[in-house]
Amino acid sequence: MSEPLRLGIAGLGTVGIGVVKIVQRHARLLARRAGRDISISAVCARSRDKDRGVRLGDYVWEDDPVALAKRDDVDVFVELMGGADGPAKAATEAAIASGKDVVTANKAMMAHHGQALAIAAEAQGHVIRFEAAVAGGIPVVKALCEGLAGNEISRVMGVLNGTCNYILTRMQAEGLSYGEVFKAADELGYLEADPNLDVGGIDAGHKLALLAAIAFGTQVAFEAMELEGIERITIEDIELAADMGFRIKLLCVAQMTGRGLEQRTSPCLVPASSPLGQLENATNMVVLEGDSVGQIVLRGAGAGQGPTASAVMGDIVDLARGFRVSTFGQPAASLAKPNPASSSVPAPYYLRMSLQDKPGALAKIATVLGDAGISIDRMRQYRHVDPTAPVLIVTHKTSGSALRDAVAAMAGTNVLAGEPVAIRIEAV
Amino acid sequence: MSEPLRLGIAGLGTVGIGVVKIVQRHARLLARRAGRDISISAVCARSRDKDRGVRLGDYVWEDDPVALAKRDDVDVFVELMGGADGPAKAATEAAIASGKDVVTANKAMMAHHGQALAIAAEAQGHVIRFEAAVAGGIPVVKALCEGLAGNEISRVMGVLNGTCNYILTRMQAEGLSYGEVFKAADELGYLEADPNLDVGGIDAGHKLALLAAIAFGTQVAFEAMELEGIERITIEDIELAADMGFRIKLLCVAQMTGRGLEQRTSPCLVPASSPLGQLENATNMVVLEGDSVGQIVLRGAGAGQGPTASAVMGDIVDLARGFRVSTFGQPAASLAKPNPASSSVPAPYYLRMSLQDKPGALAKIATVLGDAGISIDRMRQYRHVDPTAPVLIVTHKTSGSALRDAVAAMAGTNVLAGEPVAIRIEAV
Repeated sequence: MSEPLRLGIAGLGTVGIGVVKIVQRHARLLARRAGRDISISAVCARSRDKDRGVRLGDYVWEDDPVALAKRDDVDVFVELMGGADGPAKAATEAAIASGKDVVTANKAMMAHHGQALAIAAEAQGHVIRFEAAVAGGIPVVKALCEGLAGNEISRVMGVLNGTCNYILTRMQAEGLSYGEVFKAADELGYLEADPNLDVGGIDAGHKLALLAAIAFGTQVAFEAMELEGIERITIEDIELAADMGFRIKLLCVAQMTGRGLEQRTSPCLVPASSPLGQLENATNMVVLEGDSVGQIVLRGAGAGQGPTASAVMGDIVDLARGFRVSTFGQPAASLAKPNPASSSVPAPYYLRMSLQDKPGALAKIATVLGDAGISIDRMRQYRHVDPTAPVLIVTHKTSGSALRDAVAAMAGTNVLAGEPVAIRIEAV
Repeated sequence: MSEPLRLGIAGLGTVGIGVVKIVQRHARLLARRAGRDISISAVCARSRDKDRGVRLGDYVWEDDPVALAKRDDVDVFVELMGGADGPAKAATEAAIASGKDVVTANKAMMAHHGQALAIAAEAQGHVIRFEAAVAGGIPVVKALCEGLAGNEISRVMGVLNGTCNYILTRMQAEGLSYGEVFKAADELGYLEADPNLDVGGIDAGHKLALLAAIAFGTQVAFEAMELEGIERITIEDIELAADMGFRIKLLCVAQMTGRGLEQRTSPCLVPASSPLGQLENATNMVVLEGDSVGQIVLRGAGAGQGPTASAVMGDIVDLARGFRVSTFGQPAASLAKPNPASSSVPAPYYLRMSLQDKPGALAKIATVLGDAGISIDRMRQYRHVDPTAPVLIVTHKTSGSALRDAVAAMAGTNVLAGEPVAIRIEAV
């Protein structure tokens, strides 16, 4: 059996402690699978005194993650502090400069600096592994980067933020407003310190940007992503969409098209009967589409101590087994500069509006759509007591720009109360 | 860039040609991802003259797969002939003896001889990879062996034979008998030459035995598996199960229990709303449960040229990248001898019987169940025109042996027409 693989773990929050627990509990199992012992040399966190419920006395304590990253008795630097910049990035850079492999769960850091960090690591013959940064316990980076390596990938989709999916499914199940469920989620501790990372779609967007880089061999381009959160989703839209056979999800979609790389994180309608439509609560799901494999769907817990630590350990065992696939599946320096798509792939849209109850009103709306070249698949006008009638339209496929133009033109008809709501319907 | 990785492909059926197509179509993509060219040196099949729709003239033709396996210009022997023994096994042994890695899609050979072949290969510092042998395009071997390497696995489940799932879902969708759909599936070419491999559960059982070996670090023990096919499933059972909120699936379950390793391939009821219950047609699904990761669900095409070739290529790219994880995730020589479980984990059961319409009949059945210590969760007696009434019982959890004893005792009550049907309800 070879020498042990020695870890330095920076960050002893939920995930860090989860990793320590697995290393301690499954020492023999890990050694049998990895072909060598996996040991912890040193750890580091903000407070040394806190009781974390695990035995840490056998490990060297470092106060400074950079010092930990440089230690001679550390082969793999395990970064579990979080944050795009600051200590996480500084320590990761120090680890790379000291010729170590890095395992991280940090999607923000990888989405913003992953490219540069990977180039630096690979120049030294080392790699950064980040399975835990995307979809928690689901081994999706491995599936995409390795399992589907024989495929040209056409599309990657997913529900990648458990908190948003929890909010949306609980709104639907209990008929509650966004505000009410948001408050409940906050009280349960489901939200990030900055809730906009969750409900604004940023966290999901970070994850999608990383998957897109692997899928299409392109540089990580989080800043080029279309990003919209779930804040504007109302219980009315959830219920009316359900009435038409759909669910509303915060959907991440990356797709290579003739017009360039499309990356969108935004609320979408998906068929209620599809795997994505059936996904409830905080569970994550990723859909991978390749030219040979067809469609693969992966589902599992997207967060939490066990699942995230499981993903970190998968990366660590790979390194212990001597497997050093490039960070994004091909040398980071060879990733192509993506050409962001000028417009998105045409799709059907869900349109909800409040129509004033006067003769010819619906005709005016239909005319606007017709003039924009948008044809109607289904339409429902609901019974009403208000002076305005709820009207739902599902269009046939149209471009996002034609749809936006039509919505703008509707304002001029003077038959609507308020702005129409338009939500893309994704084919899944 | 390193030297090319040179393949020798034995078997040019659907899958073999699929692999040739990917190597030809994606040469540059594969080289970028693998860090080296992947080339084909030689091929071999039964008939040289057949037009297979791809250009094969650049490759050396071998009539004998053993000769192909021994060639100096072959680094990886790709076995796509099929069959547990015969030429596939002989050529694989020759490749191993010549110090080559092997990639195979051959579940029968791996289920029967995988252990011995892996020991021989690993003694030479080489490996056998068999992602394509289990669940087609779904990268489940990789997920289990690598992605979840930090987990103690508690249970592996799956729908692993697309033909059986096609038959069962089509029976349900169209209200057809087993015989009618079997005939249609045969005409569509969905069945193996020996249909018992499919509908008898053998093919699915081979796959489960391989997953169990990885999951539990035990020797492949196909011969210890409880095996039952779908031949006795009637449209009545499918419809009555649906009425109770269930679907009938040919379910593979491997579970490590206090009584030993349980491996079952048999028809089971699963909740209609579960991912397994919602799985339709020929699609495959695998459910992996680990102590840290919780439950991971993988879904995709279980057969067909593209998906199976995708899995073969994933293994090839791994080898090109220099990754040689042990065949079953730990050295094959170190796999423990499994202790087959003496009885299966208790479960609720579905019981269907035809009750004679006479006073006290139902009481007699209820008494038999009560005497066996089996309590009733739900019971339905259906309206009838026949002299016998269809009765459905869903029991609470009970052992398979108690259930079998109770069913045997029911014969003595003289209130039943025919044998009761008992099907396990698996918690998923």
